Amino acid sequence: MKQKGEQPTVKIIPLGGLHEIGKNTCIFEYENEIILLDAGVGFPTDEMHGVNIVLPDMTYLRKNSHKITGMIVTHGHEDHIGGIPYHLKQFDIPVIYGPRLAMALLQDKLEEAGVREQTTLKSVRPREIVRIGKSFFAEFIRNTHSIADSFSVAIHTPLGVIIHTGDFKIDHTPVDGEHFDLQKLAEHGEKGVLCLLSDSTNAEVPGHTPSESSVYPNLDRIFATAEGRLMVTTFASSVHRLKIVLDLALKHEKKVAVVGRSMLNTIAHARNLGYIKCPDDLFESIKAVNHLPDDQVLILTTGSQGEPLAAMTRISKGEHHQLKIRSGDTVVFSANPIPGNTISVVNTIDRLMMQGAKVIYGRDQGIHVSGHGAQEDHKLMLALTKPKFFVPVHGEHRMLVKHAAMAQGMGIPEENIVVINNGDVVELSEDSIGIVDQVPSGIELVDRSGVVQPSVMKERQQLAEDGVITVAAAVNWEGQQIGKPEIHLRGVVHKVERSLFLELISRTIDKTLHERWQAFVSNATDDQIEVDWAGLRGEIEKSLQRLARRELQSSPLVVCLLPTPEQPPTKSSYRRRRSTASIAF
Amino acid sequence: MKQKGEQPTVKIIPLGGLHEIGKNTCIFEYENEIILLDAGVGFPTDEMHGVNIVLPDMTYLRKNSHKITGMIVTHGHEDHIGGIPYHLKQFDIPVIYGPRLAMALLQDKLEEAGVREQTTLKSVRPREIVRIGKSFFAEFIRNTHSIADSFSVAIHTPLGVIIHTGDFKIDHTPVDGEHFDLQKLAEHGEKGVLCLLSDSTNAEVPGHTPSESSVYPNLDRIFATAEGRLMVTTFASSVHRLKIVLDLALKHEKKVAVVGRSMLNTIAHARNLGYIKCPDDLFESIKAVNHLPDDQVLILTTGSQGEPLAAMTRISKGEHHQLKIRSGDTVVFSANPIPGNTISVVNTIDRLMMQGAKVIYGRDQGIHVSGHGAQEDHKLMLALTKPKFFVPVHGEHRMLVKHAAMAQGMGIPEENIVVINNGDVVELSEDSIGIVDQVPSGIELVDRSGVVQPSVMKERQQLAEDGVITVAAAVNWEGQQIGKPEIHLRGVVHKVERSLFLELISRTIDKTLHERWQAFVSNATDDQIEVDWAGLRGEIEKSLQRLARRELQSSPLVVCLLPTPEQPPTKSSYRRRRSTASIAF
Repeated sequence: MKQKGEQPTVKIIPLGGLHEIGKNTCIFEYENEIILLDAGVGFPTDEMHGVNIVLPDMTYLRKNSHKITGMIVTHGHEDHIGGIPYHLKQFDIPVIYGPRLAMALLQDKLEEAGVREQTTLKSVRPREIVRIGKSFFAEFIRNTHSIADSFSVAIHTPLGVIIHTGDFKIDHTPVDGEHFDLQKLAEHGEKGVLCLLSDSTNAEVPGHTPSESSVYPNLDRIFATAEGRLMVTTFASSVHRLKIVLDLALKHEKKVAVVGRSMLNTIAHARNLGYIKCPDDLFESIKAVNHLPDDQVLILTTGSQGEPLAAMTRISKGEHHQLKIRSGDTVVFSANPIPGNTISVVNTIDRLMMQGAKVIYGRDQGIHVSGHGAQEDHKLMLALTKPKFFVPVHGEHRMLVKHAAMAQGMGIPEENIVVINNGDVVELSEDSIGIVDQVPSGIELVDRSGVVQPSVMKERQQLAEDGVITVAAAVNWEGQQIGKPEIHLRGVVHKVERSLFLELISRTIDKTLHERWQAFVSNATDDQIEVDWAGLRGEIEKSLQRLARRELQSSPLVVCLLPTPEQPPTKSSYRRRRSTASIAF
Repeated sequence: MKQKGEQPTVKIIPLGGLHEIGKNTCIFEYENEIILLDAGVGFPTDEMHGVNIVLPDMTYLRKNSHKITGMIVTHGHEDHIGGIPYHLKQFDIPVIYGPRLAMALLQDKLEEAGVREQTTLKSVRPREIVRIGKSFFAEFIRNTHSIADSFSVAIHTPLGVIIHTGDFKIDHTPVDGEHFDLQKLAEHGEKGVLCLLSDSTNAEVPGHTPSESSVYPNLDRIFATAEGRLMVTTFASSVHRLKIVLDLALKHEKKVAVVGRSMLNTIAHARNLGYIKCPDDLFESIKAVNHLPDDQVLILTTGSQGEPLAAMTRISKGEHHQLKIRSGDTVVFSANPIPGNTISVVNTIDRLMMQGAKVIYGRDQGIHVSGHGAQEDHKLMLALTKPKFFVPVHGEHRMLVKHAAMAQGMGIPEENIVVINNGDVVELSEDSIGIVDQVPSGIELVDRSGVVQPSVMKERQQLAEDGVITVAAAVNWEGQQIGKPEIHLRGVVHKVERSLFLELISRTIDKTLHERWQAFVSNATDDQIEVDWAGLRGEIEKSLQRLARRELQSSPLVVCLLPTPEQPPTKSSYRRRRSTASIAF
């Protein structure tokens, strides 16, 4: 990597979170030290068949793992902490600092992955400053977001202060009373901020994002007027929303059954740490609430995004064994669909309605607000911190561009702003900023069985589109097929009559053997022949693929198996066999 | 199917278009006659691997094909005419009546599918009334929609007039000057409408849908101020939008290159029929415009929905061989993403921006309006036609429910409104409406090779998620494996070392043979044994599936091939072989 003259520089290298929403992972590097800020997971797209988790390419970290002195965590969302167990399986991170709630959630994750002993977790308080290695100090600044206990971070470097906002909106009436520490931001702005990295998620949205508290009166009205049982679904990690719903359950004298593992987990930790306060007897099992009068029941579930396995989705399909929709139930979607989930969500809503539920959903109901600031929040952040250099982060490309334009509009010179991509090496000196290099920035896909290689994904794509034809043919040492091949079609549409298709396959194999056999036979020793069975197999597969394209108008994967005759014959026996042409294998 | 006493009834049976947007297909039946209204295709969801087209279940039509006297087409959109070629391959439709543009587009389709001779296409003019069979008359009423030459239809039946709105919005300033024939609707309202079936697409949207003309000034401003080349993408079938764009190209003295087969096709037919008027020399080839000064160039393309193979998508990926983005190009998305396409669209926008284009997109730009009426349009339709009975159609369940509530709010009694599903048989008499039966209403999936059976789709799903393991093992007539099996993994993640996994598979086969062989052997004749190879294969596949789940934590499809030994041995030879245990197959 280039080094800019003699001037000391800090390098900022995002491995994820740019040109996407997800897998936020950022490296800060000074001389021989690296600190990490967050390590999240991304979410698979529809083309990533079977994949559960998307991780950033960790090549650079694996190569430079000896430099890592520690990690900062801003808050406990999956796209910020979900990747940490995978990191710890590959290299050491001596210590991880973060908010109490995130550390509690992370501890569960590390235990589940069996890597709890690989690092030290340290909870921090607002305004706490921790030293990481020799070069970096991290100062935790309380911010407001959809999960409780969230921080922006001022990273003190030898070159000056870099502020990373983490995820934020500016909520002046936070549900938990924990205000955004605007004073600390202003203090840094006054003293001088070298560089700001700021959340761009809602950079296309004008105005301010409404306070989380604004949903309270609207949900309150629904609680007051709902007939029948009430069911509420929201993001499992939205601690503030869960607090509002539980407060309202208390107020309206309902018992709460919580359905969905991740939501139970969040509520347990949030109660344990005091972010949610409510009596134990507010909660009941599903079985118990099924026997309560309808107006005393609140069911709080996962599935607000129509996730296939989540509780609300299964309820909507009538597949939840303990919970069935009753006519007159009111179901509240206290969440907007994330782009990409719209179809699953509206299908879930339709199914619930068809079973007789009244469903309350949609942007005009005032029952959901974003956890990310809009344009006016961004401007306030820029105004308070007055950074010399600006890097928009956490967003798709057009959001970054919009955010950059806003910063320029507020007086930051164009040359002091960089719009970057994952893997870009941003070099920051006291008086310049620029992209100087690239590190590997692809993705690593993980399914239940492990890392999914691109070649495997390509095969799955083909299998998904056109299926697979499996053929086993017995070929003797003279290059002749014995009997008929055995064929299996899976995921393949066949209009051609089966016996005819089998005949076509058999003839194609015969033809290929006739034309190509000699090319794959050679003399191993003077007295023995050798057959390149793998090469021959490849040749037959190619002919069969052409056959499938012609006869089926599709391109299934073709797997041809040629069980090898047991013993290579000696030349003499080969000659003998050739004359009799009768022996199989 | 039930018949209600002696009273004559009309049956309305929608096969598609309800609880969905797509494959609009509706049957009207009276005594022994059936007419069809539209026959569209639906669009595959992400789980429908490899599928290009979704069709309604045609079982009912195949069974009753002798009753079909003709078809009415309301307009030329794919989700209203795309299914007709598939219908014509399965049964006769003696005659199809519809607007000129739809008939021109349909003629192409029928020719391409080789079924042009199967029916008679008849173009109709506004207010034309045609007789179909003995019982039905169809009266075509000009309406306004995003495609030119669109109709609502008054179906005169022996019981009274049924109005089907087709797709519509109420546009008082239509681009082509063809006004909605409100007078004819009012006349029917005055005389009495037995039943209204009305488009519900935007039943959740308050207010009026803006006129198509409202996009003109906004696009005009973009044409006037754009630096560099201008590229516009919209729906290929939006004739009015295409007309606006071409008019603006003339006004701003730009030459137009049209990219994308479907758009070229629409423009050709629309010009031919006079819906778009412009000089021939407005158009240039891509090659020619590449040599013109940037400000004289307009490129009009498909791909407004981020469709993988469409021109704009390929341009954004740098994969279009004739068109590359130049820094300074302005790209206009004159279309909103249909739910489900959002991710593809924003990814396309991001890629275009990263290549240096300025991209203009989004709802706040006033460069797209819907072709479907909102709540106030619906109310006006109900107010003009004053139907006795009402059936909301063309929409997902919650849209139908909203539309039904609107009708009830306007004074139609609840018992005169039915919210129906595909396959419901709605029976209409002079004084009652109700759902009396159900016909098959599933879906038929079609890929390049033909109809995709549900079992094939299920296999593709498994192949996509976890891949396939293919095993060929040689087993002799004594139930012993000969040599090692041959295995192939495709789309499978294998952490286990290959040779070890092969060994595990081999041992599993041995174990299964040892434990289960006897169960699959029987005596065919006194002197011959018979082996149930298929059953044995199934047994081995089950053991291998368990092995995969245990060792790979995944559930790939397992295909086991046991090439059958050539000749079943006689009992005596079997005994002989058993003693020597040396012969393979």
